[in-house]
Amino acid sequence: MTTVKYNTISTNPETDAYALADHIGQTVRLHGAIYKIRRMSGFAFVLLRMRDAIVQCIYSEEYASFPITLLTEEACVRLTAEVVAEERSRTGYELRLKQVQVLSTPYEDLPIVINQKKVNTSLENLLDYRPITLRNEKERAIFHIQAAICAAFREFLIAEHFTEIHSPKIAAIGAEGGANIFKLPYFGKEAYLAQSPQFYKQMMVGVFERVFEIAPVFRAEKHDTSRHLNEYTSVDFEMGYIESFEEIMATENRMLAHCISFLNEHCKTQLTLLGCTLPRIEEIPQIPFSTAKEWIANSCKRKITDMLDFEPEEERLLCELVKKETGSEFVFVTHYPSAKRPFYAMDDPKNPEETLSFDLLFRGLEITTGGQRIHSYQEQLEKLHARGMHEELFEGYLMLHKYGVPPHGGLGLGLERFTAQLLGFENVRSATLFPRDIHRLMP
Amino acid sequence: MTTVKYNTISTNPETDAYALADHIGQTVRLHGAIYKIRRMSGFAFVLLRMRDAIVQCIYSEEYASFPITLLTEEACVRLTAEVVAEERSRTGYELRLKQVQVLSTPYEDLPIVINQKKVNTSLENLLDYRPITLRNEKERAIFHIQAAICAAFREFLIAEHFTEIHSPKIAAIGAEGGANIFKLPYFGKEAYLAQSPQFYKQMMVGVFERVFEIAPVFRAEKHDTSRHLNEYTSVDFEMGYIESFEEIMATENRMLAHCISFLNEHCKTQLTLLGCTLPRIEEIPQIPFSTAKEWIANSCKRKITDMLDFEPEEERLLCELVKKETGSEFVFVTHYPSAKRPFYAMDDPKNPEETLSFDLLFRGLEITTGGQRIHSYQEQLEKLHARGMHEELFEGYLMLHKYGVPPHGGLGLGLERFTAQLLGFENVRSATLFPRDIHRLMP
Repeated sequence: MTTVKYNTISTNPETDAYALADHIGQTVRLHGAIYKIRRMSGFAFVLLRMRDAIVQCIYSEEYASFPITLLTEEACVRLTAEVVAEERSRTGYELRLKQVQVLSTPYEDLPIVINQKKVNTSLENLLDYRPITLRNEKERAIFHIQAAICAAFREFLIAEHFTEIHSPKIAAIGAEGGANIFKLPYFGKEAYLAQSPQFYKQMMVGVFERVFEIAPVFRAEKHDTSRHLNEYTSVDFEMGYIESFEEIMATENRMLAHCISFLNEHCKTQLTLLGCTLPRIEEIPQIPFSTAKEWIANSCKRKITDMLDFEPEEERLLCELVKKETGSEFVFVTHYPSAKRPFYAMDDPKNPEETLSFDLLFRGLEITTGGQRIHSYQEQLEKLHARGMHEELFEGYLMLHKYGVPPHGGLGLGLERFTAQLLGFENVRSATLFPRDIHRLMP
Repeated sequence: MTTVKYNTISTNPETDAYALADHIGQTVRLHGAIYKIRRMSGFAFVLLRMRDAIVQCIYSEEYASFPITLLTEEACVRLTAEVVAEERSRTGYELRLKQVQVLSTPYEDLPIVINQKKVNTSLENLLDYRPITLRNEKERAIFHIQAAICAAFREFLIAEHFTEIHSPKIAAIGAEGGANIFKLPYFGKEAYLAQSPQFYKQMMVGVFERVFEIAPVFRAEKHDTSRHLNEYTSVDFEMGYIESFEEIMATENRMLAHCISFLNEHCKTQLTLLGCTLPRIEEIPQIPFSTAKEWIANSCKRKITDMLDFEPEEERLLCELVKKETGSEFVFVTHYPSAKRPFYAMDDPKNPEETLSFDLLFRGLEITTGGQRIHSYQEQLEKLHARGMHEELFEGYLMLHKYGVPPHGGLGLGLERFTAQLLGFENVRSATLFPRDIHRLMP
């Protein structure tokens, strides 16, 4: 069995626009949706939205055996066309329509124009009409790239011997604490939607050493901001037998570098369409949280009000400073205050006020949270108790510590945030297929 | 960039047991958990659970610089060992322990024996102690295979130009109808957990032609049976521009064949450990539902009580009959009664009492449901109305039909059921990492 290359170009012109150039002089069958009809004098350009590209066809009564009135925008069709060499065409050929079979026609005209370079409307409208606005060439390119990001991450993680897991999303208890958790009735009990696969990926370190999961997580955030979602796709990995928490950052650094080179190889068309240049990733700089706080205060003449966390504006400023100083658009901020990290975070033995943890900031926004976890049972119990938490609630989770687990740590990366930052969007919703927020539950 | 092969054997003996044979005569570092200690006279066998295999080491005071009392079962360690050629060993070498660094020790003895060939306990216990019972060699092999199944499916689907999507799991409405839906409060509204990604994958056919998703789905089934879960991983795909619903079955047939050959290539060790022989898949036979019903009634002298669906016993009997007649352990049952299929299923134009749908039965159990979907707006509205459903509730979904979508269809395959049937388990929970059922919400 040969391993399949991602995004292989097929040689079938019926489904693959890129195969057409190899069929000059031939009559081919192809299918797709009519994206746009541009009537000229005596002929018309018919743009066909195929799976992988928008293709320009030429309708003329001279070649076609059907009236152009058969074609309507967003009709789905099978076409027969002749591929004729044409120097003046960007592609080197033109497609002369000969026959058509109409498979479906829209019942109504579209309520929104989707066949311009971009959909010119508010984000609100774009999302309200998601099932059709996604048909726009640029809109769908975003999610083509998002699919490739996942493929790249998986390829990297599998090559580095991480095993994929599927952890439950309905749970008896939340892993991340706080009020941002969805509750639901579950056969007479109260259950919660997983805020992260944290407990389960840690349990699985005791089984497979290294695990990953790309799956939905749920946060009942009441924030109505450009960077919060109530459901998002979390790319999680967890690795055992680490010698330091820096190993986790080094692994993410390599994973992101692999992703960028994968996208440059497989998504050129989509990136060009979106006018997007991918960042270069070399060794991502690291800066301790407290140092970063001071640096921002001094450089930007800002008063620090919250010593335990960043304000969004500070994340933005820090990224600017780091870019100016090092050229990197990514920065690892390390050693976050213990008070702001979950109960499973390992404190720094050199300074228990701080944790062996990190966030990854990218172009002004946090896209990853990670760190080393406590592996000693005693230490975990002490931290639970110090926080006034009840160990009985965590019985299943604590089996991990009680019966032995290696030193370990991991991270969670928000897929939609990463996609949005990569493509230069201001709102994470632009990189979310069907976003869920405090106002939006549909479509 | 080279495409990474699945499950590549690394040459690093520290993490990869299979690399050890290449290091005979050398001293290597390796890490893992102490799986078992077998004291003999004057020496001891120490089994180390590494990421990919259990490795046998030899402890003897003659070579080791530490007392054996340092080693306890389920302690996580880094070891230094000499790889010495040994003809009598199955592997061709023996591993003489020299030094140890203990990274963690269990706080308590394990409440259950996990280091025998199998964990000898009830399924209930096995699941109650999941974080540790999964450390058993056979238990973890199951989920190693499950990860490979997903990798195989993705490899196949990507090669056939399906694009991966991430659809929301919190929704304003259920796709599959019925009472088996979880409700949750959502910022003052009522929301539901997705029973399937049905609506979203259909919407995405209008965008990418072919899409897939491997993600959790939720069913509030009150059934307490060996084949029901309240949360499971659904492998979904949906494809446009189909000429008939048989194309969907043909695609699944190829996907399963690819999966079997992938597992035979990449999971030999795990399959051998579990004593599992994979089924051969050639062309999977098809039988219409009504013919199957009659066949079972006649061959097994059973009275048919439910003309609209199979009883579990009938699925079992049908698989036996098919196997006897054709040798196939899989069978597609087609043309299920319209009354038993969801409102989006396309009726057979030749007989509107039946749908262009199918189930795939494997070794006595349904593992897939699929079929062609209605793509005409009028037809979909009529079916909604005929069922007394309110079209206003389906506004977002119906955009799909209203604004044009090609003929299409797809399927959903239950990952845990498929894994269980493949490995010959009686209960789907045996192939579920952390099962959720009406009694179980932990761990």
